[in-house]
Amino acid sequence: MKAIRVHAYGQPPRLDDVPEPQVTAPDDVIVKIGGAGLCRTDLHIADGWFADAIPADLPLVLGHENAGWVHAVGPAVEHLAVGDAVICHPNLTCGVCGPCRVGDDMRCTAGPNLPGLTCPGGMAELFKTRARAVVKLAPRAAPAEVAALADAGLTAYHAVRKAVPALESGSFAVAVGIGGLGHIGIQCLKAMTAASVIAVDTSEEALKLASDCGADHVIHADGQQAHQVRDLTGSGADAVFDFVGEDSTIGDSVAMLRSGGTYYLVGYGGTVTLPTLPLVLGEITLAANLIGTYADLAGLVTLADQGKVVLHSSRYPLEAADDAIDDLRHGRVRGRAVLIPG
Amino acid sequence: MKAIRVHAYGQPPRLDDVPEPQVTAPDDVIVKIGGAGLCRTDLHIADGWFADAIPADLPLVLGHENAGWVHAVGPAVEHLAVGDAVICHPNLTCGVCGPCRVGDDMRCTAGPNLPGLTCPGGMAELFKTRARAVVKLAPRAAPAEVAALADAGLTAYHAVRKAVPALESGSFAVAVGIGGLGHIGIQCLKAMTAASVIAVDTSEEALKLASDCGADHVIHADGQQAHQVRDLTGSGADAVFDFVGEDSTIGDSVAMLRSGGTYYLVGYGGTVTLPTLPLVLGEITLAANLIGTYADLAGLVTLADQGKVVLHSSRYPLEAADDAIDDLRHGRVRGRAVLIPG
Amino acid sequence: MKAIRVHAYGQPPRLDDVPEPQVTAPDDVIVKIGGAGLCRTDLHIADGWFADAIPADLPLVLGHENAGWVHAVGPAVEHLAVGDAVICHPNLTCGVCGPCRVGDDMRCTAGPNLPGLTCPGGMAELFKTRARAVVKLAPRAAPAEVAALADAGLTAYHAVRKAVPALESGSFAVAVGIGGLGHIGIQCLKAMTAASVIAVDTSEEALKLASDCGADHVIHADGQQAHQVRDLTGSGADAVFDFVGEDSTIGDSVAMLRSGGTYYLVGYGGTVTLPTLPLVLGEITLAANLIGTYADLAGLVTLADQGKVVLHSSRYPLEAADDAIDDLRHGRVRGRAVLIPG
Amino acid sequence: MKAIRVHAYGQPPRLDDVPEPQVTAPDDVIVKIGGAGLCRTDLHIADGWFADAIPADLPLVLGHENAGWVHAVGPAVEHLAVGDAVICHPNLTCGVCGPCRVGDDMRCTAGPNLPGLTCPGGMAELFKTRARAVVKLAPRAAPAEVAALADAGLTAYHAVRKAVPALESGSFAVAVGIGGLGHIGIQCLKAMTAASVIAVDTSEEALKLASDCGADHVIHADGQQAHQVRDLTGSGADAVFDFVGEDSTIGDSVAMLRSGGTYYLVGYGGTVTLPTLPLVLGEITLAANLIGTYADLAGLVTLADQGKVVLHSSRYPLEAADDAIDDLRHGRVRGRAVLIPG
Repeated sequence: MKAIRVHAYGQPPRLDDVPEPQVTAPDDVIVKIGGAGLCRTDLHIADGWFADAIPADLPLVLGHENAGWVHAVGPAVEHLAVGDAVICHPNLTCGVCGPCRVGDDMRCTAGPNLPGLTCPGGMAELFKTRARAVVKLAPRAAPAEVAALADAGLTAYHAVRKAVPALESGSFAVAVGIGGLGHIGIQCLKAMTAASVIAVDTSEEALKLASDCGADHVIHADGQQAHQVRDLTGSGADAVFDFVGEDSTIGDSVAMLRSGGTYYLVGYGGTVTLPTLPLVLGEITLAANLIGTYADLAGLVTLADQGKVVLHSSRYPLEAADDAIDDLRHGRVRGRAVLIPG
Repeated sequence: MKAIRVHAYGQPPRLDDVPEPQVTAPDDVIVKIGGAGLCRTDLHIADGWFADAIPADLPLVLGHENAGWVHAVGPAVEHLAVGDAVICHPNLTCGVCGPCRVGDDMRCTAGPNLPGLTCPGGMAELFKTRARAVVKLAPRAAPAEVAALADAGLTAYHAVRKAVPALESGSFAVAVGIGGLGHIGIQCLKAMTAASVIAVDTSEEALKLASDCGADHVIHADGQQAHQVRDLTGSGADAVFDFVGEDSTIGDSVAMLRSGGTYYLVGYGGTVTLPTLPLVLGEITLAANLIGTYADLAGLVTLADQGKVVLHSSRYPLEAADDAIDDLRHGRVRGRAVLIPG
Repeated sequence: MKAIRVHAYGQPPRLDDVPEPQVTAPDDVIVKIGGAGLCRTDLHIADGWFADAIPADLPLVLGHENAGWVHAVGPAVEHLAVGDAVICHPNLTCGVCGPCRVGDDMRCTAGPNLPGLTCPGGMAELFKTRARAVVKLAPRAAPAEVAALADAGLTAYHAVRKAVPALESGSFAVAVGIGGLGHIGIQCLKAMTAASVIAVDTSEEALKLASDCGADHVIHADGQQAHQVRDLTGSGADAVFDFVGEDSTIGDSVAMLRSGGTYYLVGYGGTVTLPTLPLVLGEITLAANLIGTYADLAGLVTLADQGKVVLHSSRYPLEAADDAIDDLRHGRVRGRAVLIPG
Repeated sequence: MKAIRVHAYGQPPRLDDVPEPQVTAPDDVIVKIGGAGLCRTDLHIADGWFADAIPADLPLVLGHENAGWVHAVGPAVEHLAVGDAVICHPNLTCGVCGPCRVGDDMRCTAGPNLPGLTCPGGMAELFKTRARAVVKLAPRAAPAEVAALADAGLTAYHAVRKAVPALESGSFAVAVGIGGLGHIGIQCLKAMTAASVIAVDTSEEALKLASDCGADHVIHADGQQAHQVRDLTGSGADAVFDFVGEDSTIGDSVAMLRSGGTYYLVGYGGTVTLPTLPLVLGEITLAANLIGTYADLAGLVTLADQGKVVLHSSRYPLEAADDAIDDLRHGRVRGRAVLIPG
């Protein structure tokens, strides 16, 4: 079958003919890929950023945002049938550790175990995963339309879900950075809470997308955005979701909060540098976020199935993966890029 | 000024000329009434149902759902100005007991202290309340449009707010009885949660109202409603809000729940009669509900100000209170009846 | 091996020689029994109470409160080793349904699947269960001392854990009925909350046990117990745990609550019969309880390992099961009866 | 009467004869001081640290940790009687803003309004406060023994209370820095949760105090303390309370956490400097803490009344305030210093 593989770090991935994956363990599931999301993390993997921290056997099939239909199952899998439309959680989990037993499976102590990084991913015609990672979609669902929910969307949903108890009627939530995660975050906020949503970005096009996604207010980030948020909210926002996470957005986002508010760090790259005195006087909380659980992914695809969350994506044939990668590297992808096997 | 007063239990209330209320205590607030909701509880008061339990001095001005504009304030009131549009919480609270200090003021140990029952109410041109009971409305708000949120709406909001943590994406909430409370409850569920909302009523007109309010599914209560809810939800609803609370709806509502689900008793009148064995096997919770807090009322009027909750009401001049009472007694009021001083 | 089996409903169970259980499925676990708790439910099973609702193949090995050491494991079981001290959760769960995925495995949609009722139990030398039901004990633990935590203790722990957020400093919790569940419940309340604990029972011996378990106050149930609780607490208890659940204790327990308090129904047998008006005026919650989750059992055995929860039990050789049953039927067992294979 | 006043920043406070405070507002309360805690913040105030941020009229009576007996009340105060033993919350709040109405009064929008900083404090024979700041003690309570709970203890209690839901059976909580706040924090953790408590300090004497307060484990901070916590806990602590908050303890404390754990910043002075990548990979939360609410103080004095929290303090006559200040500046105070009017 066709698959997109990294042969050497720093080299473009190649379209190869590879053997089809086979069921070998009782809980194996083979998925016929309907769409595989292309993520900035894939570029980092291909570029070798993780080569030391999480060594992989090359060549490696990329792809951790995978959706399609069940193609074959191992003998212990009774709740999935061939033909079921499915989306795959990006972490393969053990099911028996403490975190797994309370539903906090994203913290499985046997992992991380990530297809497309530690084992073959889903940029291929067929993809092998395990029963515990498979979320059923509604029968009529189009896997290619939701594939990118499996990582980008999941992280945004997970952060928003934590904030639900604090986002009561009359509260304000700010989304900083309206890209692949941010536009899902806004829709989750509108679907799951009564908060008024303020979108902040440097790009007018991004703010247009924010409005389309339901943001109640948009603010052009011109250096005065924290002041503008404080003016709009009166005493500051209850929650700020930073989908960028660079040095510049961190302090700025914290400055948007009311006393007792929470800063949700979603994007990353920068360094948190904050004196303790204002943190204490404002009783600020900083909550970092990492992917989400199996149940989070199930909740998110339900919102998508109900039309409350719509993922903006651009499709490429699997054979055109190099075009997609090139477009992503040069900021030419609108929404998320999704690869579609022929 | 004009006021509607009960002179003798069982006799129709009368339109009287009475002296205007005066500021006598430091935290008194006099409100010029924009609208006073007429509630079935007013009929019960006039009929003498509470004569023994909560004796009142007759004649008594009715009215516990009051909204208008600040007319005068006592010397200790600094956060309200004459002319502010306001709605009045139906319980006068002490501010210093344990429940008041944690925001649970509906359980103020000095009460209940209810205008229209234990002191003069708001079916009048002017109404005296206390600073702690006054919620500011948006400057442009029309008090007559929101007056009935102060009791009927508040109770529905309060019950829904309790359920928010359990009503995640993919969950189902049922509203049983789509009248004055139920139609607010549906709108609160849609504004505050990601749950799918199922409305159940015996009346097609009520179900039409439910759909207008955003219900995702409507079920005509023909005796099979619990079965229909179970079919629709797969394993039962996560939450059922019983806005009726008669013997017939109680058991029926509990039968709609999934294992681990919660029955919210809002309406009342009947008796809960349930064997313990199925309660335990289903690990069912029954949560009774009573009005709501000051903060609940503030949250609800914010939803109304944002257009997320719209109260259906019928207006009557204050002088036509007897017509309104007659219409309410005979089921001829559409939405909530609101009395408007001339 | 030796096993205690029911051959006919209504007949005393018999000590039989039966074949040893064998690993047949990948996640099977065979446990060498260190102790098997004898529970009133076992009498009900032997008496045929469940014959219609949950038909079993006779003869049936009894025993759903099982602890011991791992004897053999199936090929998919990697986290357990032969010789590990373990206790077994009384429900065999699927691991893939919605409730299982969020840690709410006691509501597994594939069950209930209960050893000692729907498949062979643990009143035997060896017992076959599944990996998902096995909780590891500390290496030095004595399984016979904790076996009865697997059902009786688990239910008490589960109910108390729900109440933790409401049982802050200054709160009052009442335990009604200080037997097998109640004495564990008191210890859990003391270990997990800052509440003052009031024990209520008709027996002075039970109240002595309550004091030994850490109860702050004991009240002899002489008909005035609700009044006494109200006097002691000022405004009523925040939580009442009814470990009896008979008609007489239900209304009495609810009468002990403060406004806004919660009644935890743990024992059962009676019928809840409560008019809605006082429930609503007091905004009372009734929370029924059923066993507990895998994580609950893990939490409880940790408390036992730390010496915070001590189970009072009486040991019988497995061969003397008929004596134990006879003692239990006649109220002669002190604490929980535990059967110990020879 | 006698009072300790700051006359010029940087100069030692002086013992002065000043007029007695008088009731002037309806909700004023005059307290006869039984004890006034001396806090490092008092040194900062006397040294002029806050002169720019929060200007005060000099001379200023110091003292924000005040307890005693009601001496006189204003006409609107009905729930306090002369002679009541009381402790005073360190913030004077409005009672009508949004935060006050939900019990989050420490975030009163009219404040901060702090006796001993923005108005006369309690290092005097009599002290004027307001009804909303007064918490009743048990009749037999000794105010001098609990005065220092009003700030130091309150902050520790408040932080621990936030952590209660995460500190279930089997969890680990770490207290870093076992001084005035830390020794209260340990006692609160033991009284309110089932967590195992680990104390970390550089001083053997402090670790001895930690053991006396109930710590389950003590670790001498020798540079390897994060490793030792990880070894002891297996996968890291669920919560770390940093009562120091210097640069050196911040990174070290975060390194003690398990994935998904929370760092509670209580002490302050340093700067949080943490790269986002490990925060995100570990999904770490940082929660800063500021004093506590009125209800927190009520909860804490209940624990003290029940003997679950004991404050270690050293008494000085009010006239010897300069000795106390000198001892505090030179690290010679054991526990908290409390000034006692003659």
